[in-house]
This record gives sequence, structure tokens and C-alpha cells, in this order.
Amino acid sequence: SRSIDLAVIPGDGIGQEVVAEGLKVLSAVLPQDVKLETKEYDFGARRYHATGDTLTDADLEQLKQHDAILLGAIGDPSVPSGVLERGFLLKLRFAFDHHVNLRPSKLLPGVATPLAGQPEIDFIVVREGTEGPYTGNGGTIRKGTPHEVATEVSVNTAFGVERVVRDAFERAQARPRKKLTLVHKNNVLTFAGHLWTNIFNKVAEEYPEVTTDYIHVDAATIYLVTDPGRFDVIVTDNLFGDIITDLAAAVSGGIGVAASGNINPSREFPSMFEPVHGSAPDIAGQGKADPTATVLSVALLLRHLGYDTEADRIEQAVSADLAERGALPARSTSEIGDALAVRVAG
Amino acid sequence: SRSIDLAVIPGDGIGQEVVAEGLKVLSAVLPQDVKLETKEYDFGARRYHATGDTLTDADLEQLKQHDAILLGAIGDPSVPSGVLERGFLLKLRFAFDHHVNLRPSKLLPGVATPLAGQPEIDFIVVREGTEGPYTGNGGTIRKGTPHEVATEVSVNTAFGVERVVRDAFERAQARPRKKLTLVHKNNVLTFAGHLWTNIFNKVAEEYPEVTTDYIHVDAATIYLVTDPGRFDVIVTDNLFGDIITDLAAAVSGGIGVAASGNINPSREFPSMFEPVHGSAPDIAGQGKADPTATVLSVALLLRHLGYDTEADRIEQAVSADLAERGALPARSTSEIGDALAVRVAG
Ligand SMILES: CC(C)[C@H](C(=O)O)[C@@H](O)C(=O)O
Ligand SMILES: CC(C)[C@H](C(=O)O)[C@@H](O)C(=O)O
Repeated sequence: SRSIDLAVIPGDGIGQEVVAEGLKVLSAVLPQDVKLETKEYDFGARRYHATGDTLTDADLEQLKQHDAILLGAIGDPSVPSGVLERGFLLKLRFAFDHHVNLRPSKLLPGVATPLAGQPEIDFIVVREGTEGPYTGNGGTIRKGTPHEVATEVSVNTAFGVERVVRDAFERAQARPRKKLTLVHKNNVLTFAGHLWTNIFNKVAEEYPEVTTDYIHVDAATIYLVTDPGRFDVIVTDNLFGDIITDLAAAVSGGIGVAASGNINPSREFPSMFEPVHGSAPDIAGQGKADPTATVLSVALLLRHLGYDTEADRIEQAVSADLAERGALPARSTSEIGDALAVRVAG
Repeated sequence: SRSIDLAVIPGDGIGQEVVAEGLKVLSAVLPQDVKLETKEYDFGARRYHATGDTLTDADLEQLKQHDAILLGAIGDPSVPSGVLERGFLLKLRFAFDHHVNLRPSKLLPGVATPLAGQPEIDFIVVREGTEGPYTGNGGTIRKGTPHEVATEVSVNTAFGVERVVRDAFERAQARPRKKLTLVHKNNVLTFAGHLWTNIFNKVAEEYPEVTTDYIHVDAATIYLVTDPGRFDVIVTDNLFGDIITDLAAAVSGGIGVAASGNINPSREFPSMFEPVHGSAPDIAGQGKADPTATVLSVALLLRHLGYDTEADRIEQAVSADLAERGALPARSTSEIGDALAVRVAG
């Protein structure tokens, strides 16, 4: 008999509310024979204020036992900027070697976009998750003086770049359009740029069916608003991926529907799935948050664990729900969750 | 009697064509008593292929003699990526200490935007021009092997950050809305982030009339498409500025109308003005390029040299021309230049 052993991290702000709906839909979609076990972990601002901890070695040992992790949101204005980001979110990505940060962008029927003319948008971004300027390399000298110097080092390795580039080629190969775009800034960041470009071109030889191209990150932001339909799969580094996936989410329906997976494809450690939106403390606890991004993150989680049929059912339910939204009065977080649970069960 | 001694660098691709129109409008707008002298320099792909040089010390000595520089575009597919960017464009910015990279974004009446609902857009980005990951710091070890490591170092100094932040506060103070937004990623790039944030907050105390806020660069891309009207003046680092100004150009009428100044406010060295678009080799020599961005760059140049009335006249002429475009048949590069020259002279 099959089973899913899930670590659940509701986190801060609206995290609690949206994760509850994610789990509701997950329970509803799973066949009877799949045993779902969940264990909730209290990470984030509350824990930090109570203990000063963000994520300890003992925490990591426990999390490691699970098949996957579902996260709501981490972050609160009461905690200094960077503490939870570096101390929890990034620490987890690095500890569990989440090198494939997967972010699909699909403009679903009925969903509003800030772009004129309702363009067709359906691409995925494969963002590297463990290198680049996210490594924490760098430092400060003469802090607080007029002679302060602060550096940030982007670290890029052949090992780290090649594995994520290969993952992106595999994903491109499996899609109907079979197109992969490398986004970087290789005309200025020439050291990292050459590494990325050379590896991209080398791996491309093994995928003759995949059409490839290269775009500078600044130009990519232009295409994302003038011609987003040109993209199928994008592969890019950690920082560029951070920036363009927020823009991609904005043009394809907003961060209310943007899902993401922090994936370790080797499954050596559990992968983590989370909505792209943050903790949104201004609307927390009011039942106003849209749980759709979390529900779509659950679909990514299921696909990662091999439950493709169930992932498809969730994505179809979300499409159907979004298509009808315009005609419905505004619903609460749990009403949307209920509606999706009914659809996936039906 | 007044005079302007201008270095003109047409450069590659459409650079020649658009610079010719920029100069046409400049001549037409200047009062009789201002003597305009121009000297043309041949930099870019042609020079590189002929001599292997991009920009020598002797070139810099010559350029230094001028009051300002007008550049068309540099870059050609025949030159390996990075050679002209690092060897010419960035070398010039660093040599002449162009630390204020000024990029206005204004959606003018009649101009198409990819955004729905024709929002009001009128902000300027003050991009730092001599630090960040643009310094060329970093390197590669074990190049071409499976163990290659490539680094890029973002260098940020209190000196470099404070001067550009001050410049941005001055510009914000002089605008009706008096609002300044710092864009960074201080929750991840904590070393540089703290430096930027601390200096920003410190300088803010001297400008009590300026309203300030802070936005992460990823979130800034969302606002640029969902609520660009929220921005008045943005100050940001070199790389974030590169990325968001291309997006800003795209939403406010496209790079066909985006002007920029690489400014040394101390006037120790000449400042350089250039359209944001590149050399567009695909349409070069066909009279198809829109010279508007170059003409608006000439307006920035005039304002920098203290010719505010003439700069205003150019901006008004461009507004009027753009407002009528929809009703006109397509015009060539020189026809647009002629029309603008007539308007500014009249
Ligand atoms: C919160 C922050 C650390 C994070 C990142 O920069 O990766 C977020 O913006 C994201 O995209 O998941
Ligand atoms: C061509 C390149 C070096 C340049 C930059 O990255 O600054 C360009 O993109 C720009 O924005 O002026």
C-alpha cells in the first residue's frame, strides 16, 4: 500500500490559512489506498521570537525523515530583514540541496493579467537554487564607517550549473514545443556567463530535438511583457530566476496563483513546495488569502512523488474554478478550498 | 559666447542613423549664439576588427577634452559577447566615473504600452553606474573542466552608494511628488543590502520632505506591471538598475523611446548620453530605426549642460510628435528626425 509522509510548515501570516486549504485538497484528491500522514512544524517568526532559533540541526534531522515538505510562508515585519530568509528559507534550500527551483507560469482562462490583449502564456522557469549570489559568500569591512566596503560573491560551479541545465533540457524535451531559453547576463558577468553558456551549449548537443536560445536578463524582462508566448522553458541562475519569476507570476495571473517547488531531483532529501507569495501580514487571519497558489504547489508536490493523475486533477480543478470566478461573488480562503476539494473529489 | 564641444560616437548597427537625427535636432534647437562643435569617433565593431582595440588610453585622453558625449549604440554579433561591453561601454563608464546612470520612464500620450488600461507612468531610475557586479571582480578556476568554478563579485562602497543615493534624494526633492524608493534585495544580499539600506536611511534624515520606501527587486518587477504609477524616483544598484530599467522602458512605450544619461555630476569628466536600445543589427541601414530615444538623450545632455529651455523644447516636440503618430503613415528614421527638428525650431 502506498503512503505519503508529509512535513507541513504553515509558517507566518497567511501561511496557516492557505496551507489548511492545500491539505484539504490533498486529502480530497488522494485515492483511498494512499495513506497520508502529516506532521506540523512550527517555524518562522513565532519560533524565532520564543527561542531565537530559525532552523536547527535537530530540526533538519526530523524534516529529513519525510517524503516532502509543504510550506505556507515564512516572514514577518517583527523580524529583521534577512534573518528568516537566510536562517530558514535559504538554509533549508541549501541543506536539502534543492537545486531545481521550479516555477511554472500559465495564464489560465478567466484569469486577469496586467497585460493588454490576454496573451497566451505557458512556460516554466527552472531556477538554480543553491548557487549564485545566494550562497552568502561575501562580507563587510569597516562597517558603519564612511569607508565601508560590502561584497556579495556569486559562486557558480560546473557541477551546479550542469545538473540544473540538464534538468531543464529534460523538461523541455518532454514538452510539446521543446524550446529552452538560457537567461543570463553573459556580456557583463563574463566569468559566470561563460560557464553557463558553455555548459548550456555542450548539453544542448545531447538534445537535438530541443530548440535553444539565449537572452540577457534585462531583455528577458521586456519579452515577458511584450511577448511572453515566446517562452517554453527558461533556465537561469538563482538571482535572475528570483527576479524574472516574480515578473512571470505577475503577468500570468499574479502571485495569488503562482506555485513553486524547491526540488532535489535525486530524492536524497525531501523536496519542498510553496506558493511564491509571501506571508502577507496585512491580510493575515482574515480569510482573504487566495489558497490557489498553495493548492497548485500541492499539485507540483504530487507530481514530484509520482502521483501524476492526482496532480492533473488538481490542476484541472483550479482551471475550472478560476474560469468561473468572474461570475461568482468574492469567496473566503476556506470557501475556495472547499470548492476545489469538491471538484477534485468529484 | 556659449559653446558646446561634443564627442559623437555613432557606433554600430542603427547607431549611425539615430545619432544623425539626434544631431539634426540638436542643431535645430540651439540658439544662434551657441556654437556647436562636434567630433566624430569611430568606436565599436569596425574599429575592433580593424585594430583589435576597443578604447585605448589615448582615446580616453581625447574624449576627456569634450563637454559631453553622444553615443548611438555599440555591439555587433560579429564580436564575441562581452568584448565591446566590457572593453568599451563599461570601460568608459568606469574611466569617466559615470556613477549616476539616469533613466527616465514616462508614458507619453498616444504611445502604446503592453499594459492594459493605459496607466499613468512618470518616474526616473537613478542606477548606480560604477559598482556592484559590474566591476569585473571575480574569476574562473579550472576553466573548461568539470570542476570549473566561476565567481562574480559585487563590490559596494559607502562612498559609491552615498553619492548616488544623495543624487537620487536631490532629484526626488525637486519633483512634485517628492518620493524615493530604494530597490535592492537586502533580505538575501545582506552585506550589500545593509550598506545600501543604512546609507539610504541616514541620508533620508536630511530630506524630511521626501517620502521614502523600500522594495525588493523581485517585487519591484511586479509593481512595474501592476502599479507603475506608485513610482516617482527609484534608486538602485548597477545590476538591479540594468534589469528594471529595461522593464520600465518596455512598459512606458518601449526601448524606441527610452533615453539614458551616464552622468558624472562633478563634471570632472564628460558625461555620456545614449538611447537604451542597442545596435539592432537586424534593421540597421534600412531607415527603420526610431531616433526618438536618441533625441530624448540629447535632451538629457542639454539639461546636464544647463540648457533647460532647449531640453524642454525637445521633450515637448517629442510628446507632440508621438501624440500624432497613430494618425500618420509609418515614417523613416530621417523623416522622424526632420519632423522633430522642425518642431523644436518653430
Ligand atoms: C524570501 C526570499 C529569500 C526568496 C528568494 O529570494 O528566493 C523569495 O523571494 C522567493 O523567490 O522564493
Ligand atoms: C550593454 C550592457 C553592457 C549595458 C548594461 O548592462 O549596462 C546595457 O544593458 C545597458 O543597460 O546600458
